Amino acid sequence: MSFSFEEHPHRRLNILTGEWVLVSPHRTKRPWQGKVENLPVDNRPAYDEKCYLCPGNTRSDGSINPPYKGPYAFTNDFSALLQDTPSGKLEDGLLQASSEKGICRVICFSPRHDLTLPQMEEDDIVKVIDLWQDEFSALSKNEWIKYIQIFENKGEIMGCSNPHPHGQIWAQSTVPGEPAKESIQFKQYFEKKGKSILSDYVTLEQQKQERIVCENEHFIAIVPFWAVWPFETMLISKRHVQNILEFTEEEKKAFAKILKNLTIKYDNLFETSFPYSAGMHQAPVNDGEHPEWHWHMHFYPPLLRSATVKKFMVGYEMLANPQRDITPEQAAKRLKDLSDIHYLKK
Amino acid sequence: MSFSFEEHPHRRLNILTGEWVLVSPHRTKRPWQGKVENLPVDNRPAYDEKCYLCPGNTRSDGSINPPYKGPYAFTNDFSALLQDTPSGKLEDGLLQASSEKGICRVICFSPRHDLTLPQMEEDDIVKVIDLWQDEFSALSKNEWIKYIQIFENKGEIMGCSNPHPHGQIWAQSTVPGEPAKESIQFKQYFEKKGKSILSDYVTLEQQKQERIVCENEHFIAIVPFWAVWPFETMLISKRHVQNILEFTEEEKKAFAKILKNLTIKYDNLFETSFPYSAGMHQAPVNDGEHPEWHWHMHFYPPLLRSATVKKFMVGYEMLANPQRDITPEQAAKRLKDLSDIHYLKK
Ligand SMILES: O=P(O)(O)O[C@H]1O[C@H](CO)[C@@H](O)[C@H](O)[C@H]1O
Ligand SMILES: O=P(O)(O)O[C@H]1O[C@H](CO)[C@@H](O)[C@H](O)[C@H]1O
Repeated sequence: MSFSFEEHPHRRLNILTGEWVLVSPHRTKRPWQGKVENLPVDNRPAYDEKCYLCPGNTRSDGSINPPYKGPYAFTNDFSALLQDTPSGKLEDGLLQASSEKGICRVICFSPRHDLTLPQMEEDDIVKVIDLWQDEFSALSKNEWIKYIQIFENKGEIMGCSNPHPHGQIWAQSTVPGEPAKESIQFKQYFEKKGKSILSDYVTLEQQKQERIVCENEHFIAIVPFWAVWPFETMLISKRHVQNILEFTEEEKKAFAKILKNLTIKYDNLFETSFPYSAGMHQAPVNDGEHPEWHWHMHFYPPLLRSATVKKFMVGYEMLANPQRDITPEQAAKRLKDLSDIHYLKK
Repeated sequence: MSFSFEEHPHRRLNILTGEWVLVSPHRTKRPWQGKVENLPVDNRPAYDEKCYLCPGNTRSDGSINPPYKGPYAFTNDFSALLQDTPSGKLEDGLLQASSEKGICRVICFSPRHDLTLPQMEEDDIVKVIDLWQDEFSALSKNEWIKYIQIFENKGEIMGCSNPHPHGQIWAQSTVPGEPAKESIQFKQYFEKKGKSILSDYVTLEQQKQERIVCENEHFIAIVPFWAVWPFETMLISKRHVQNILEFTEEEKKAFAKILKNLTIKYDNLFETSFPYSAGMHQAPVNDGEHPEWHWHMHFYPPLLRSATVKKFMVGYEMLANPQRDITPEQAAKRLKDLSDIHYLKK
């Protein structure tokens, strides 16, 4: 019997974190007797008078949203990080802690309560990208901010507490764990090869043609070789840029196009509004030059078998190591083969 | 305004992994409009003819369970790791992978379909500990096995696919990520101080009296200073031992006692069969001496506000850093103050 990556359990290295994932391709044969999620009812109106994110409505802190027409940003009424946190430190042997300052923002993608990214027009997605740029630029003007995390939780299965399509930005005074790990890997490679590790990785994937989901002139969507979540993908800019501010008008159009393209495929996979957490990783700010950093965006979707059966990252995964069932190559093929037209438009 | 760990956002260091957690104590004021879990109906019979784990029943692979009377172990019919995996390696620049061998076992805690650990008699829990020892001992006789992960997923919210109380063991040919991180921290401390970092940590917590949930002569349950999950706890053996085989008869009784004590408190917290993933971390096997390692067990429960509202580790947490709302001290106090008698027995 000879070893096959399509059939036998194996480990794969995540070149961005230096960590490994366990792959068990044969395990999809397991019958599922566990939890089946409720399908969230989705008959959202274009405007919902009870939604605290819709234009003109009153928020929980009493403030009133303006009658906004495009995407709209404001400071989170229940921010996990606050700007006026006093400094403090505890260094008591095994107990180490220190205060953390930050700003949490909410970005409504549009006034429409019912339109997720795959359902929006490309031009309207460009406006979201414009706002992400504005926010990134404004936040980074605070010298004390060292890292800006732009992300979206989509779907109630992903802890999203309001169905009005929106994303968040948490900006803070230290570099959090995940980007800190990536910084180390980017730097090691850059120092050795004088190039971005992601540029070389994109070239490799273009040669292999096994894990690409879709691409255009400026961006590529790949199921990474080391993907943890069943249908995890990574969006990479073909040009080696450090952060979202560097994108040209043309690149922003291409970014909007691939965002729509990828999320349509996601919705089509199980003919459901596909839940995920997604977010960009970018160079730290107010921290000198970071030529090693390469902008990219991760999509971590939980669904495994259908719109109602997800992958549980529990027991073994929490205590020992991330584990996945289908191979990244199988996932990429399924996503790639899906239609580019949204299933609700057919 | 002076900084307070009970009020202001801050970061805390996990001394076992070297990673940080973000704590946002003020954030519990946030109203919850997000997902509310279904309360799993729990009227389990003592024996369920449709359960593939009950004594005498037929499993999905056609084999028949013996009419077992105590705890019962068998090899998982859908193991994620297999013993007969051929060796293979891929070292293609940025693509690094290698085959992984292993054995996955299932441990039914008792013939009873309806008794979770907090509902079992202490003597019957001792029998589970005996079986864990037997399994650990038998598995480690395979020279190629380097790490043995004993764990339990409890509750369907934790991806547990069968309600018959059971745990699992995944034993494998390399040391997975989480224990590998802990190995580094244990070693660094041991080399510097000639002692176990957890022994010193237990002493510190006994002095502070702020995070202890319960203890007996041989074990202590603590909400660690760096806990990530709202009601996360760690069970530590007071004696510095490397693995479960070293426990004496007396220690096994004390281990059973504290397991029951802690899980009763968990059930009493929201008057529900409290879901969690729990598992032991122990020294790697067939890998020389590991005097630095100190046996302990983590409990990672997802519930935050009630039996139906959990903490979501999503967006920011997946992309940036683990984040928690209530402080570990608040969680410890709530657990400590709960009755030691199971709410169903009152
Ligand atoms: O082995 P089970 O109970 O079928 O499956 C459960 O536990 C495993 C180990 O933690 C996880 O990999 C699965 O995602 C989870 O559903
Ligand atoms: O900010 P929200 O949408 O209320 O909350 C959601 O996203 C946050 C950031 O990922 C998480 O910390 C919360 O657990 C989740 O419920």
